[in-house]
Amino acid sequence: MRSVVLTDTDGLFVTNPTNVRYLTGFRGVSPEEREAYALVTTDTIYLFTSALYRETAKQFSGVHQKAIEISYDHPITAALSEVCDKTRIKTVGFEETNLTVWEFQTLKQSLPGITLTPTHGRVEALRQMKNTEELKSTRLAASLTDRCFAYIKQRLKPGITEGKLAWEIENFLNFKAGGNAFSPIVAFNEHSAMPHYHERGNNPLRKGSLVLLDFGAKINGYCADMTRVVFLGTPKDAWVSTYTTVLAANEKALALLKNGERNGATLDAVAREVIAGANLPVYPHSLGHAVGLEIHEAPRLTIKKAETLKPGMIVTVEPGVYVEGTYGIRIEDLIHINANSIELLSKSTKEITIL
Amino acid sequence: MRSVVLTDTDGLFVTNPTNVRYLTGFRGVSPEEREAYALVTTDTIYLFTSALYRETAKQFSGVHQKAIEISYDHPITAALSEVCDKTRIKTVGFEETNLTVWEFQTLKQSLPGITLTPTHGRVEALRQMKNTEELKSTRLAASLTDRCFAYIKQRLKPGITEGKLAWEIENFLNFKAGGNAFSPIVAFNEHSAMPHYHERGNNPLRKGSLVLLDFGAKINGYCADMTRVVFLGTPKDAWVSTYTTVLAANEKALALLKNGERNGATLDAVAREVIAGANLPVYPHSLGHAVGLEIHEAPRLTIKKAETLKPGMIVTVEPGVYVEGTYGIRIEDLIHINANSIELLSKSTKEITIL
Repeated sequence: MRSVVLTDTDGLFVTNPTNVRYLTGFRGVSPEEREAYALVTTDTIYLFTSALYRETAKQFSGVHQKAIEISYDHPITAALSEVCDKTRIKTVGFEETNLTVWEFQTLKQSLPGITLTPTHGRVEALRQMKNTEELKSTRLAASLTDRCFAYIKQRLKPGITEGKLAWEIENFLNFKAGGNAFSPIVAFNEHSAMPHYHERGNNPLRKGSLVLLDFGAKINGYCADMTRVVFLGTPKDAWVSTYTTVLAANEKALALLKNGERNGATLDAVAREVIAGANLPVYPHSLGHAVGLEIHEAPRLTIKKAETLKPGMIVTVEPGVYVEGTYGIRIEDLIHINANSIELLSKSTKEITIL
Repeated sequence: MRSVVLTDTDGLFVTNPTNVRYLTGFRGVSPEEREAYALVTTDTIYLFTSALYRETAKQFSGVHQKAIEISYDHPITAALSEVCDKTRIKTVGFEETNLTVWEFQTLKQSLPGITLTPTHGRVEALRQMKNTEELKSTRLAASLTDRCFAYIKQRLKPGITEGKLAWEIENFLNFKAGGNAFSPIVAFNEHSAMPHYHERGNNPLRKGSLVLLDFGAKINGYCADMTRVVFLGTPKDAWVSTYTTVLAANEKALALLKNGERNGATLDAVAREVIAGANLPVYPHSLGHAVGLEIHEAPRLTIKKAETLKPGMIVTVEPGVYVEGTYGIRIEDLIHINANSIELLSKSTKEITIL
């Protein structure tokens, strides 16, 4: 059982679907809908879900875990109220960044004798520190991402489109892995100037092009994330010099991390200095972010907020340069933070690659 | 411009990502994150998004629409406050089923002079009535779903696994369409007893099997949804008789719909009667649901709540029988509700299919 330490309330009511999955293993089909809830008490985790998941619920039973069926006639509010009565729970924490205003009002009316206390990022804090199993899944995901990159480089021939390449990445990862961590970004030339370009262009690849690829596998729910830029035919001088600068920024941050620098703000600042020092525009995003069951998790590595990276975290390092309407270059690696060093999970080459 | 009628407030602050997309066309990469917001006023729709989407934002400009950039230093709260000041807005509706408790508190503190009013399903109500363009996209999605079913039937050979078939469906729809409306369900034999089975089994298909397929294409964001059950080799007698009953329930509901019955509760009740009349267990879900930019939208067709189906709605009709641990049969069609009739969008055969 994942151990949520309850210090200030008798129970923690968990609504965030990723947190529910983390605590109970429950996987629904639709993360946008409320398919399951969890209640953590001092000695038991309760999983609330509907008859649609009866077979899944059956597997969730034991000394410290119990599944309770909910339905239209026996909604979560009633089920929760019953458990609170039975276990004499008086105070329940809720996830204030997940529970909606409407849900909160409904809950308050259904639990008149219970004190509801807002909590913030309680389960997310646990999720930041990956255990051995989680690291293993992420390592596998990163390794499959590397294999996908090797495969996709062979497919980069004149005539192929962004749409086809994105489809090839999706297929590769769906088939070899447990799916895609996010919808792959494939951007040729000026499209790469948009950090979150997500069209599926029909423009054929031509000799003398820049290709930005940002994608990742997902294994057992754990995401990988990597960006590489390669060139088809002789690259423009500006591309090569920008590439060299972005790579220097990426490697500077990695070297500092390896040597024990653990302040995300410092790392971001240093990477920005490398880019600004070459008279190039700095990136309009953070240097990186944590990764896990979700592709973007806390903490971020950003000059906006000093956050300490801790052993067990898995983060990206992804400086970039975006020249509006012209081109963009981003180099992104996935890293596991150790006590005194780092483990580079992305192993694909970062040397200038001309295909 | 989509017309949200503002009756009780000067503005409507929209946070639900699907509603933001519906009103502005904005498509982010991550529906779980707050990548964009909208504010609807009497004459203008404002789109708030970050520099990551600068190029997208540029396209959102005109007499009645305006994009505003937000960032860590200029967050949504500040940007919203400025627009309210400038346009002299005094009352703002928010989406109570989407805004979190924490967001609401933050908003309240940032907009001290503004009255915040909870609203419920305002944009969702507009989304229920599909316009010509939306119907066109859904028709295409349904048609591609039919084509995918025809293709996948050819792939149903002894030895193939659930995982491989699901992958084939995903590939087909990713390549031919704009993707999958949801993760396809492929369930052999006893797995079909779980209405939301979503494993990717490695069990090879054998002669004498029942195969349940539930999937749908997505075109321009609009979802299709269809379920068919087919048999490989001679089916068991119980399967055939149950199939016949489920089909009768499906066709009874469709016939009533065609003849003008518009009460979802009545339709659900009638379908349940057909199944109960054959001494089979009734389904633990509703008869159907509306479909659009999301796979499950309001209203539901359910005995739990009388709701009137209106011209312009697109809904599923999907009765089923699930015999615990043994097998399940569900037959699901997608339907467009007309003024006096219906248009059956799913055209795949429902005759007993033995491959």
